[in-house]
Amino acid sequence: MSKHDHDREEGLEFQPKFDASGLVTCVATDAATGDVLMVAHMNDEALRKTIESGEAWYFSRSRNALWRKGETSGQTQRVVEMRMDCDQDAVWIRVEQIGAACHTGRRSCFYRKVDSGARLSFVAADRLFDPKAVYRE
Amino acid sequence: MSKHDHDREEGLEFQPKFDASGLVTCVATDAATGDVLMVAHMNDEALRKTIESGEAWYFSRSRNALWRKGETSGQTQRVVEMRMDCDQDAVWIRVEQIGAACHTGRRSCFYRKVDSGARLSFVAADRLFDPKAVYRE
Repeated sequence: MSKHDHDREEGLEFQPKFDASGLVTCVATDAATGDVLMVAHMNDEALRKTIESGEAWYFSRSRNALWRKGETSGQTQRVVEMRMDCDQDAVWIRVEQIGAACHTGRRSCFYRKVDSGARLSFVAADRLFDPKAVYRE
Repeated sequence: MSKHDHDREEGLEFQPKFDASGLVTCVATDAATGDVLMVAHMNDEALRKTIESGEAWYFSRSRNALWRKGETSGQTQRVVEMRMDCDQDAVWIRVEQIGAACHTGRRSCFYRKVDSGARLSFVAADRLFDPKAVYRE
């Protein structure tokens, strides 16, 4: 392992390891329950804004744009704690989620279970808001 | 939204949305505590083997190889539940982790906290094994 990689893993300097698109992966969990709410991406600016504001900001790959979580839907995330992983290409934020994290209106994006036959079934799939009304699809 | 995208979000068919490298993101959490243990990737084969065996398999981008979690270190993961996210490009597994999930010997890869000044500090950073001994670095 190079000295640089070692420093990234064992040091206390914040040095995110961005991918070719300039992004790290972010996992948001519910601070109250531990449930994973969503997996998304942050670029350097989203990381900085999240750290500075205490609210979650992401970078949308499909829209190629920075966004504050909840700016359209009102379903914001207050960051209780942010953690960095060993090689600094992923962050974990524990959040207080207002309403639903998922654009489909569910509390979590992970509203389907995968069974041993690779079939899906709904779990925790109630909608907390109507996406058609919120996003005017 | 296309009918295909709608089916992927609202249907019960397992149809992972692989990226250009043939991978989905996988978040593994500790079934007992809800802590995020690691973020890694699965290709089609890793997904199938995980579902069939009930043990976590991943695809290593750095080694370009399929691997069974713990095959070298003995620190295996038994999958308690697997969930799929809305657009099927990420999976969440709740696992019973034997020992440490992180290759550095820590229970979780997320052993450093990011504070409001973007400085890191160690939390939960005790090593459960010596990586030099385990991986013969």
